[in-house]
Amino acid sequence: MKSREIRLTQHFTGPVKSDYFELSETDLPEPAEGEVVVRNAWLSVDPYMRGRMIGVKTYIDPFEVGAPLEGGAVGQVVQSKADGFAEGDWVMSMKGWREGYVAAADSLTKIDASVLPPEAYLGVAGLTGMTAYIGLKRIIELKAGETLWMSAAAGAVGSAGVQFAKAMGANVIATAGGQEKTDFCTEIGADAVVDYKATDDLAGAVRAAAEPFGGVDAYFENVGGDHLQAALDVIKPHGRMAVCGMIARYNDDTPLPGPTNLTQIIAKKLKVQGFILSDHFDLQGEFIKDLSDWMMAGKVKTRDTVYDGIEQTPDAFMGLFTGANIGKMLVKL
Amino acid sequence: MKSREIRLTQHFTGPVKSDYFELSETDLPEPAEGEVVVRNAWLSVDPYMRGRMIGVKTYIDPFEVGAPLEGGAVGQVVQSKADGFAEGDWVMSMKGWREGYVAAADSLTKIDASVLPPEAYLGVAGLTGMTAYIGLKRIIELKAGETLWMSAAAGAVGSAGVQFAKAMGANVIATAGGQEKTDFCTEIGADAVVDYKATDDLAGAVRAAAEPFGGVDAYFENVGGDHLQAALDVIKPHGRMAVCGMIARYNDDTPLPGPTNLTQIIAKKLKVQGFILSDHFDLQGEFIKDLSDWMMAGKVKTRDTVYDGIEQTPDAFMGLFTGANIGKMLVKL
Repeated sequence: MKSREIRLTQHFTGPVKSDYFELSETDLPEPAEGEVVVRNAWLSVDPYMRGRMIGVKTYIDPFEVGAPLEGGAVGQVVQSKADGFAEGDWVMSMKGWREGYVAAADSLTKIDASVLPPEAYLGVAGLTGMTAYIGLKRIIELKAGETLWMSAAAGAVGSAGVQFAKAMGANVIATAGGQEKTDFCTEIGADAVVDYKATDDLAGAVRAAAEPFGGVDAYFENVGGDHLQAALDVIKPHGRMAVCGMIARYNDDTPLPGPTNLTQIIAKKLKVQGFILSDHFDLQGEFIKDLSDWMMAGKVKTRDTVYDGIEQTPDAFMGLFTGANIGKMLVKL
Repeated sequence: MKSREIRLTQHFTGPVKSDYFELSETDLPEPAEGEVVVRNAWLSVDPYMRGRMIGVKTYIDPFEVGAPLEGGAVGQVVQSKADGFAEGDWVMSMKGWREGYVAAADSLTKIDASVLPPEAYLGVAGLTGMTAYIGLKRIIELKAGETLWMSAAAGAVGSAGVQFAKAMGANVIATAGGQEKTDFCTEIGADAVVDYKATDDLAGAVRAAAEPFGGVDAYFENVGGDHLQAALDVIKPHGRMAVCGMIARYNDDTPLPGPTNLTQIIAKKLKVQGFILSDHFDLQGEFIKDLSDWMMAGKVKTRDTVYDGIEQTPDAFMGLFTGANIGKMLVKL
């Protein structure tokens, strides 16, 4: 079986360009004992991948130049030499950015495509959804009746977080850019929505939106830059900020200065905490339980932005930084 | 009895100037039933007071223009109309910046000047020391064997914190500016000391100093600006930052941008938390017990920088921002 895959051509800082990716074809080897051959059906592209393209070790090793990139993927077994894995079984892996692969069966996670569509395991029911859950549950410790400001609220993590926060009994102020995205935020239940592209005064607009709810108790940071400045300005004393991402900063050629109002951390006694999903897998059982309850109760809607074909994977990835996605950004093979 | 006092002439931002203060004399009223007359012996000046001079409510009301300023003070009762308070008794109050006052006895705290010198109740045994203690114990949750970077380590909170952290079994990297201050940091037990004025690469210098101890687990922020940038750079993954003050920022005419490396909060999964002593008075008993043990064991040395006379109080206060103090800054009356 042949498989096309996307390889990284060089490490880089600054804006992502298509030159940094190349499409190659490879022959998959025959599976050995205990291995399976998988054809991927859906690939995930995620902002955190940008950090692995710089070539510096952070919390995770950089991608290797010349090798296929890695990322979340779901696919079906097409040939099995492993007990318990049959042709047609759905599996989730980190072997994305490629059409197919051969791997040890015990490195894969079987998923049940009769419960949820398989691509949901890359989104709300997967790492994306669990990231939103951890941020709300463990970092912010969101309580019913509190008011959350969710940034990038029409994005993958953001839109999951808006709905989880509502299900947890909180009020949600959503910010997003453009009419289509703000409409989506309303559709998924945000109590108030601010289009950050339509205002010169983000802090003022969020403050006004949150006023009927008594102000902002907690902020979920996906953006950075002017959003963080506004959040420090707006958030109430003893506020908590879960710092999940700063997508506005990832493509800077040279690092840009931070907010001018960091002394608010003292004046307001804020807790500002970064987190990464892999530190919190102990909450997975609780996440699955809560998510099932919320889905059964019809509290969680999903929407994906889908690109077609392996060759579009770099475009899908680059689209994350221009705001091309509503909900989860996926590539369908 | 006449009392001279320092009054605020106007609210202001930017550098502190002596014009903003005036010395006035007032006649104290006769004490009513339940009141005492107190002559202050020692006044405390503290960086947080700067925030009360801006004229904007933060966690505490602004100082009133034309009224005497407020601050920590210890003094002796010279006349009493209150049960349980006799002439000669030592009391602590927030009625500083003045030579004497009349107040309800139940608004004052009696102190035992036979256990510690009275001015210690404004320093290591008072709000200053407890601020350091809360930052280490509750915000950072410092554990024995960990390595702490204390900024402004020759200052009042810093020098208390260095010694408390050592007493808690941690390693301490101290930063301070100039030979006299770095010598003092060594004297009070810091394991390594960096003179930030003598290096162009604060992050590199601290990293090198912390290397024998396996790197920096926690940072105690008193400074802001380049110190925060360096701390984000140096601190290890899962590091904790207690944000107590940012003295480098308080006198900015216009707010200056923050660090360019805030994405480290995500990459390193940092907890960055501001705090204010008054939220944590529940730990007072524990603080007094630990402090007594440490002082009995000879683990806590104190040093004060003393200005003389009520008229020098503004100079003492302004000296905080030029680094004029080693240890606690006090005014002796």
